[in-house]
Amino acid sequence: MSSDMTNSPRPKSPDSVDQDQFLTILSREEAMARFDAALFPRALPSEQRRLADAQGCVLAQDIVAPIDVPPFDRSNVDGFAVRAADLSKAGEAAPVRVMLNDEVIACGTAPLRPVLSGTATSIATGGPLPRGADAVVMVEHTNPAGAGAIEIRRAASPGQFVSYAGSDIARGETLLRAGTMIGSREIGMCAACGISEVLVTRRPQVAVLSTGDELVQPGTPLRPAEIYDTNGAIVTAAVNENGGEAMFLGAVADDEEALEAAMRKALATCDMLVLSGGTSKGAGDVSHRIIARLGKPGIIAHGVALKPGKPLCLAVCDGKPVIILPGFPTSAMFTFHDMIVPVLRRMAGLPPRSDAKVTAKVPVRIASELGRTEFVMISLVEGADGLIAYPSGKGSGAITSFAQADGFLKIDALADQLPAGSEAEVTLFTPHVRVPDLVIVGSHCIGLDLVAAPLARAGLMVRSIAVGSLGGLAAARRGECDFAPIHLFDEATESYNAPFLMAGLELVPGWRRMQGIVFRAGDARFEGLDAQAAVRAALADAACIMVNRNQGAGTRILIDRLLGEARPDGYWNQPRSHNAVAAAVAQHRADWGMTIAPVAHAAGLGFIPLAEEHYDFALVTARKQRPAVQAFLQALASEESRAALEGAGFRPA
Amino acid sequence: MSSDMTNSPRPKSPDSVDQDQFLTILSREEAMARFDAALFPRALPSEQRRLADAQGCVLAQDIVAPIDVPPFDRSNVDGFAVRAADLSKAGEAAPVRVMLNDEVIACGTAPLRPVLSGTATSIATGGPLPRGADAVVMVEHTNPAGAGAIEIRRAASPGQFVSYAGSDIARGETLLRAGTMIGSREIGMCAACGISEVLVTRRPQVAVLSTGDELVQPGTPLRPAEIYDTNGAIVTAAVNENGGEAMFLGAVADDEEALEAAMRKALATCDMLVLSGGTSKGAGDVSHRIIARLGKPGIIAHGVALKPGKPLCLAVCDGKPVIILPGFPTSAMFTFHDMIVPVLRRMAGLPPRSDAKVTAKVPVRIASELGRTEFVMISLVEGADGLIAYPSGKGSGAITSFAQADGFLKIDALADQLPAGSEAEVTLFTPHVRVPDLVIVGSHCIGLDLVAAPLARAGLMVRSIAVGSLGGLAAARRGECDFAPIHLFDEATESYNAPFLMAGLELVPGWRRMQGIVFRAGDARFEGLDAQAAVRAALADAACIMVNRNQGAGTRILIDRLLGEARPDGYWNQPRSHNAVAAAVAQHRADWGMTIAPVAHAAGLGFIPLAEEHYDFALVTARKQRPAVQAFLQALASEESRAALEGAGFRPA
Repeated sequence: MSSDMTNSPRPKSPDSVDQDQFLTILSREEAMARFDAALFPRALPSEQRRLADAQGCVLAQDIVAPIDVPPFDRSNVDGFAVRAADLSKAGEAAPVRVMLNDEVIACGTAPLRPVLSGTATSIATGGPLPRGADAVVMVEHTNPAGAGAIEIRRAASPGQFVSYAGSDIARGETLLRAGTMIGSREIGMCAACGISEVLVTRRPQVAVLSTGDELVQPGTPLRPAEIYDTNGAIVTAAVNENGGEAMFLGAVADDEEALEAAMRKALATCDMLVLSGGTSKGAGDVSHRIIARLGKPGIIAHGVALKPGKPLCLAVCDGKPVIILPGFPTSAMFTFHDMIVPVLRRMAGLPPRSDAKVTAKVPVRIASELGRTEFVMISLVEGADGLIAYPSGKGSGAITSFAQADGFLKIDALADQLPAGSEAEVTLFTPHVRVPDLVIVGSHCIGLDLVAAPLARAGLMVRSIAVGSLGGLAAARRGECDFAPIHLFDEATESYNAPFLMAGLELVPGWRRMQGIVFRAGDARFEGLDAQAAVRAALADAACIMVNRNQGAGTRILIDRLLGEARPDGYWNQPRSHNAVAAAVAQHRADWGMTIAPVAHAAGLGFIPLAEEHYDFALVTARKQRPAVQAFLQALASEESRAALEGAGFRPA
Repeated sequence: MSSDMTNSPRPKSPDSVDQDQFLTILSREEAMARFDAALFPRALPSEQRRLADAQGCVLAQDIVAPIDVPPFDRSNVDGFAVRAADLSKAGEAAPVRVMLNDEVIACGTAPLRPVLSGTATSIATGGPLPRGADAVVMVEHTNPAGAGAIEIRRAASPGQFVSYAGSDIARGETLLRAGTMIGSREIGMCAACGISEVLVTRRPQVAVLSTGDELVQPGTPLRPAEIYDTNGAIVTAAVNENGGEAMFLGAVADDEEALEAAMRKALATCDMLVLSGGTSKGAGDVSHRIIARLGKPGIIAHGVALKPGKPLCLAVCDGKPVIILPGFPTSAMFTFHDMIVPVLRRMAGLPPRSDAKVTAKVPVRIASELGRTEFVMISLVEGADGLIAYPSGKGSGAITSFAQADGFLKIDALADQLPAGSEAEVTLFTPHVRVPDLVIVGSHCIGLDLVAAPLARAGLMVRSIAVGSLGGLAAARRGECDFAPIHLFDEATESYNAPFLMAGLELVPGWRRMQGIVFRAGDARFEGLDAQAAVRAALADAACIMVNRNQGAGTRILIDRLLGEARPDGYWNQPRSHNAVAAAVAQHRADWGMTIAPVAHAAGLGFIPLAEEHYDFALVTARKQRPAVQAFLQALASEESRAALEGAGFRPA
């Protein structure tokens, strides 16, 4: 994936095709510095909140303890308040008899009588020590000794079982600092001091607007060419997670007048505006023009030497930040995380984020574009010698590149690659990385989700990284995963998978997936034919277009055998997945292709079965005894899994 | 601190003093196992939520992707949809001319015309590929070539700049697992698939009741012997932080009828009831009796071999957990964290908590009680060779023991101590431990908070651990802190601090604190006298009681000099802080003592100045160049600090 230039020139009529580019591409650091300078320092509005309603808020000022905690010298046990000097000679064999004062100090009762020498006062845990007493003896170390007296069988040191006033919190000490996020502990400390209201920084109100004609809000069916608005929802949620209070204002079509009205309305009531575009650049152009009219100084940076995220636009309109995120979801979320969250946190009164970092080895070469700092989303797995950082192969247009990543690594603008085997510093998105219990690297199948279900229910974390069969085998050979699911066809032996295994790997049978020809149900060219006849019919019709599969796929070998020397229209349309084949046929991009039965049925397509594909697992023998591996093997063999696989259209091996 | 036996027998009339104990003390593991068995498995109620309202909720079922994302083969750039085979010979020197189809595929527009061989269709980023096309060329690599045609200057590989349908998320794949907490990423993935509602586990409703006659809710002034209800607020907040929805029902006095009514009302509407007692045990006894009447099986465990937390009571009443936490705040919070949160998380549908752990060295010996698993709250600081774990010295009665701890370490029930220098495994309360930038170990002074204020504002984390002057010097010698604040008086040289310094330490002057005699304003025995005369007046009155200071305190030396051989009443009352002395006098526990001027004034007491105490800093020379140390030295010397110190009644050195 090489581009997320959502604001690069829109295709125009052929005569006006031109090469206009971003006027000034700033470095990430320069863009951040200019944005910061235009926004800070600034006064942060604050508000008084009841302590119980302040959870998750940020303190706007230091809190100084107004009282001592405990407020008085307190007994820590149930027993008797005494003078230690009276008991200097006490022992089991020589108990000391003292007279009881006519008072029982319960919790909440202030003592009235002093403890004079030779006397003691009954006191409950939490009771305040009376005048004259300097220690407490536990009731267990005393005996009744006739009317109004007790015997004490142990000596007492001064201060014994006493918590002195202010020993927990001292009046005047700074209890909490401005900028502290209020959680249960902070609430506890305030409550202990009797503080019932705190001054907190008002959460910045952030308006989130989506732009783009192709966007549909979740919950509404898609029409052709439409996509769901992902950025609106994720940006809204991410604002809430980072100290802001988001207001999602919906999607606005690429209409200058409507968009300007929406932006003005948002800025009238909010402290910040985040536009998250669709992939359409029309909206971007329009937004930029509008920003110039909304307030000074306007656009601060438009185009940042950052990948993903180049088309990010930062503006300040009359003191309020206005941001246009790139349209591609991972570009949008990464730039939001990297450049907007710090600003949002600062406006929320929060201290700078402290990112957790780990060192991990990169198992494969990662190419990088010269001249742009590149951030690569990664998944962490545990290797034999430490953490392994798998780069996401899905690119910035995929939401899962960001949403399923553990963190990211950075490739310098001056480097054109990170070689395989490099040690890289990985910045984590969440402070506590949980390394998965089971790592599956290879070809994905929805059957895998079914087999892994009981592991997930048992709290095991299963990570599946889809890199195809060959990528999985390579990872297994390097010991980076537990299993590599593969479906590789060996033409020499006419068999699946076993011929591809290397030393240190063993084959665990998985299930069979029926491959066959798909076509749109009702297409008279194919209905009722067998696979060979269907392909002959397709080749006989010049208007009939196929969809192929990528080189290396087992399914591709089957297709090529059926086609022989023929290279019909669509032969070079070579997606990498069964789903993409089904989608192409369903959407009339092609008329036929080869996929597996469950995918064909889910897409509502006609299906002509041809041959079973063997989806098996290359198990790394050295990892066989790991509990999660054993759990997976058990799950695979279970009746529950077999039934689930059959229900989904697979045939367990 | 050796006891938090809030439910041990209450002091009774002397004739009935007895030794009844917990009937059965269970091990922590046994208590947990019985509690779990009585509660699980159980059905977890779930509810449908709008995606936007589901942030922070827990998925009640797996989510399977209902569509492919992207839903169609999508262009990743602005350019032209082509057939790659047409361009196999294209190059800068040999551009290939193709005819443009009469269509522009913008975002959201479904293509109508196929791309036949020798043609291309204008397409925007995000647009769906038309039938027949198998690649996209960027507009930058094309030239206009007369009416309705372009020249393409580069060859294209099949699939170039295309994201295939399902390449981000494949229809049928398990997108999210039940038990996942829904954050922004999960919201993004659901939105991308068009999911607008999710089934989430209903948050368990948890009623929180405080019990105890001595409890006052924050915001109301304290009367003598009363304390603020800390547990009510902190338990309520902690429930909210751990998947529950807390309802704080206030504090109920130790009245059986009222308490039973409150408990029944809580259980009628809530899924769980947490009683957090005051330190009064009366309420505990009453609650236990009531629980027996509330439902089966009733009390599961009462008394756990756990420190802090022995008096924890676990019950199940007709399927609902009822918990009586110990009264002492750190006992309450630790047992809540250790034994209740796992149950709450399970009821909330959350997976087991995964605690982060670190290894750290314990700098001092920690004594432990045989027969109870002991958990010691600790603060982490960075030493020369790794992390150092300082035990909290404040005991389980202090809220700050828990609230200011980074985590805890465990001492086995069979060990009576953890020797100084031991390596211990520390379980962190929050996954990401932030080691403080500046560590100050020694005697605390509120002046320190003033000097540290600019560091806190700059985002530096300052940790001050109060262990007294001598403890601070020991820590400094071991290199465990940056500064040790000390005020040690050397009788031989009649000077402060300098005589106590060891190799590797240097003295940084701090400020002077005026020590003097405190008494209640208006006490005719002292008004108008100087210190010597005041002490003579006190000694002349047999009813006059003093409050002393602990051995080792510089102030104690002054007191002893004033007293000479005299040992008046109260001499053995020896608290460890200036605040405790002021509180004792203010509350009539004593009539006079010695403290420092700011503390006397804050307590509204009369004050007779005597001599200045030197509060200085022993700086660990090896750590002098650390940025936070330099920042502190700068702050100490600043005009801002000097003014603040003077304002608070100190005299900068």
